[in-house]
Order: sequence, then C-alpha cells, then structure tokens
Amino acid sequence: MRDIFEAELTQLGQDLVAMAGRVEQAISSAGIALLTADLQLAESVIADDLAIDALERDLDDRCVRLLAQQQPVATDLRVVVSALRMSASLERMGDLARHVAQVARLRYPGTAVPAGLEPTFTQMQDAAVRVARRVATLLETRDMALAESIQQDDDLLDALHSDTFTAMLSGPWERSTQETVDVTLLGRYYERFGDHGVSVARRMVYLVTGDLADALDPAAVRGA
Amino acid sequence: MRDIFEAELTQLGQDLVAMAGRVEQAISSAGIALLTADLQLAESVIADDLAIDALERDLDDRCVRLLAQQQPVATDLRVVVSALRMSASLERMGDLARHVAQVARLRYPGTAVPAGLEPTFTQMQDAAVRVARRVATLLETRDMALAESIQQDDDLLDALHSDTFTAMLSGPWERSTQETVDVTLLGRYYERFGDHGVSVARRMVYLVTGDLADALDPAAVRGA
Repeated sequence: MRDIFEAELTQLGQDLVAMAGRVEQAISSAGIALLTADLQLAESVIADDLAIDALERDLDDRCVRLLAQQQPVATDLRVVVSALRMSASLERMGDLARHVAQVARLRYPGTAVPAGLEPTFTQMQDAAVRVARRVATLLETRDMALAESIQQDDDLLDALHSDTFTAMLSGPWERSTQETVDVTLLGRYYERFGDHGVSVARRMVYLVTGDLADALDPAAVRGA
Repeated sequence: MRDIFEAELTQLGQDLVAMAGRVEQAISSAGIALLTADLQLAESVIADDLAIDALERDLDDRCVRLLAQQQPVATDLRVVVSALRMSASLERMGDLARHVAQVARLRYPGTAVPAGLEPTFTQMQDAAVRVARRVATLLETRDMALAESIQQDDDLLDALHSDTFTAMLSGPWERSTQETVDVTLLGRYYERFGDHGVSVARRMVYLVTGDLADALDPAAVRGA
C-alpha cells in the first residue's frame, strides 16, 4: 500500500516536471514568435496550450483520487495539496505564454514590440525562460539554490516591467496607440509569469524545508 | 464525528460567503474610488485586501486540517477541494479590486478614466459588482439561476473590454500615453475579475449538480 502510494507521489512529481517543461517550451517559443514575428511558432504555442491544460486536469484528478483512496496525512497530505496548487500556477504560466503568442499573431507580419524596446523585451523573455527552466529543474532536483535565482529573475522582470512604463511615460514616445497597448499588455504578461514562477518555487521550498525533500522526487520511483 | 464534520463543512461555506462579501465590498469601493477620484476609499480597498488574503489562508488551513483529520471521500472530498479552489479565485478577485484602487490612487487628484470612456467603465464596474454580489449569493443560497447571470455579466465585461480597444484603436483617440496605459490595464483587471467570478460559479454548479447541494449550506449548521 505504502509502495503504491509512494509511486503515485513520484508520478505527481514527474507530472509537475513535465508540465514545467512544456511551460518552458511555450514561453521560449512565444518569445521567439514575438521578437521575430514568427506566425507558425505563435500558432504552435497557442495550440499546445491545450496540452498544458490537459496535463493540469489529469494531475488534479490524480490528486483528488489520491486523497480519496490513500487518505494521506501530515507531510504526504501537504505534498498532494501543494501539487494541486503548483499545477494551477503552471497552467496559468502556460496561459500567459499563450497570451504573448496571441499578441505576436495579431501583429503578424509586423512585430508588436517597438524597436526601441526590443532590448527590454529580449531581457524579459530571457528572464522568463530562465524562470520556467529553473522551476522545472527545481521540481526535478530540489536544488534549493534555484529558488533564490527564480526570485532574482522575478525581481529583474519587475524592474524591466517598470522600465517599459518609464520608456512610455517619461521620455519621448512617438508610438502608436496600438504599440502602447501592446507594450502595456506584454509587460503585464511577463510580470505575472514571473510571479507564478516564484509561487511554485516558494511552495517547493516550503515542502522541502518541511523535511519533505523526497516526497516529489522523480528518482524515487526507480527505488520503489 | 459526522456532526462535527458537517459543522466544519458548513463553516467552510460560511467562510467562502464572507470572502465573497468582502470581495463585493472591495470592487464596489474600488470602482467608486476610480470613477470619483476618492483617495480615501482607494486607500481603504488597498488596506482591506490584507483581510481577504488572511481569510484565504485561514480557509485553506482549515481545508487541509479537514482533509487530514476527517479524511473525507467522494462528495465530501470534492466539497473540500472545491473550497480550496474557490478561495483562490476569490483571493485573486480581491487582488484585482486592489489593482483598480491602486490605479485610482496613482492618478489622484485626477481620474484615470478618460471622460469619453466613463460610460464604458461605469458599465464594467456595475457588471463587476453584480458578479461579486451574485457569487456571494450563489455560495449562500445555491440558486443555480445566478450562475447563468454571472456568465452573462462576464460576457458583458468581455464586450465592454473589447469596446475600450475599439475606442482607443478605431476612432480618434487624442489621449495621453498614460491614459492609454491606464485604460489598457483597467480593462484587463475588470475582464479578469469576471473570469474568476465565472470560475467560482462553475465550481459551485459542479458541486450542486453532483447532488452536493447541501454540502456548503450555511443553514445546515443550525440543523446539525
């Protein structure tokens, strides 16, 4: 019974890693689509978000089944409840990547990012991809140093988001209203993406520092 | 044991109703602050959001404790898991009301909404307040007709959100960049507020149509 339960927990951990990997792919492609006006890539991100949503539903169903059949307590219970919450954050990160791709698609064959803000959005994109990658690695390896890096990239995203407002509001800004709207929405999407990444990282730290380090270990299944 | 559990479930239901009531108060005040440049009201919404966050934490802690101590199965389990998710949506609606209030505060003593868009934002505000009020009433009375009204107001919010883009992008728009940014963000906040309201309503319908009508009934405690 315990072996089955541990295998199930391990599977939950693997599913979260898989979701995070898909999210990394989504934001990576969405950013390239945005910065290079790649319509096909934008379309693929939009289509693939359905798969992330499906992963969330599967994972949530499995969590509820686990709660019902195994009736976990203490640390095991916290692992399952945390998995439910982390999957919701990852699903939302997928949505935000899709939103970026949708802006790219709307502006095709033009680009949504005004020339002067390309460096800023390139940095936001790089930070967002790092957040997603480190979330995936943190879920897989429980290397707590990654949580700190994720927080730093979120701070960077906040600063870059602030830079976009400075560019629009404090200097000469001879851009169209459409460009102002796009920059405002894109900045918000990236900023929220970072917030959700930090949310996942914090839940993971909470689990691990609560001596739950092995609970979501994908390697555990091999020893089970 | 069963009596205690039912009393606990009833308490969960009451907490959700209380959260929804606070959210209704928050969006109502935030909108007035926005449309009338009322700094004091904006400040109160921003301060009160901490109370909504605290309600969410309390409710979540109680859910996890319930899962651990009562080990509910079947419908009871779904009620508890649904409460966890509905509290997350309500907390997020509180955040969005706070964001509206923060925009109002930033523009004080001016107003963030350009004169021509006041009718549109007044309608968005009215729809958002109705969504929050009906979510609270739906949680309290389980009157399923309300779910349909909430969906309709969410559709209205989407249409009004679209109207703000039309106003900015398809007509003469002689507004400042700041006004464009504010309208873009405010529109997004109201649109998301509606989405979360629908999310709570859908979960409630799912619970009730699954013959769980009594599970979150605040009146049940009196009969327990």
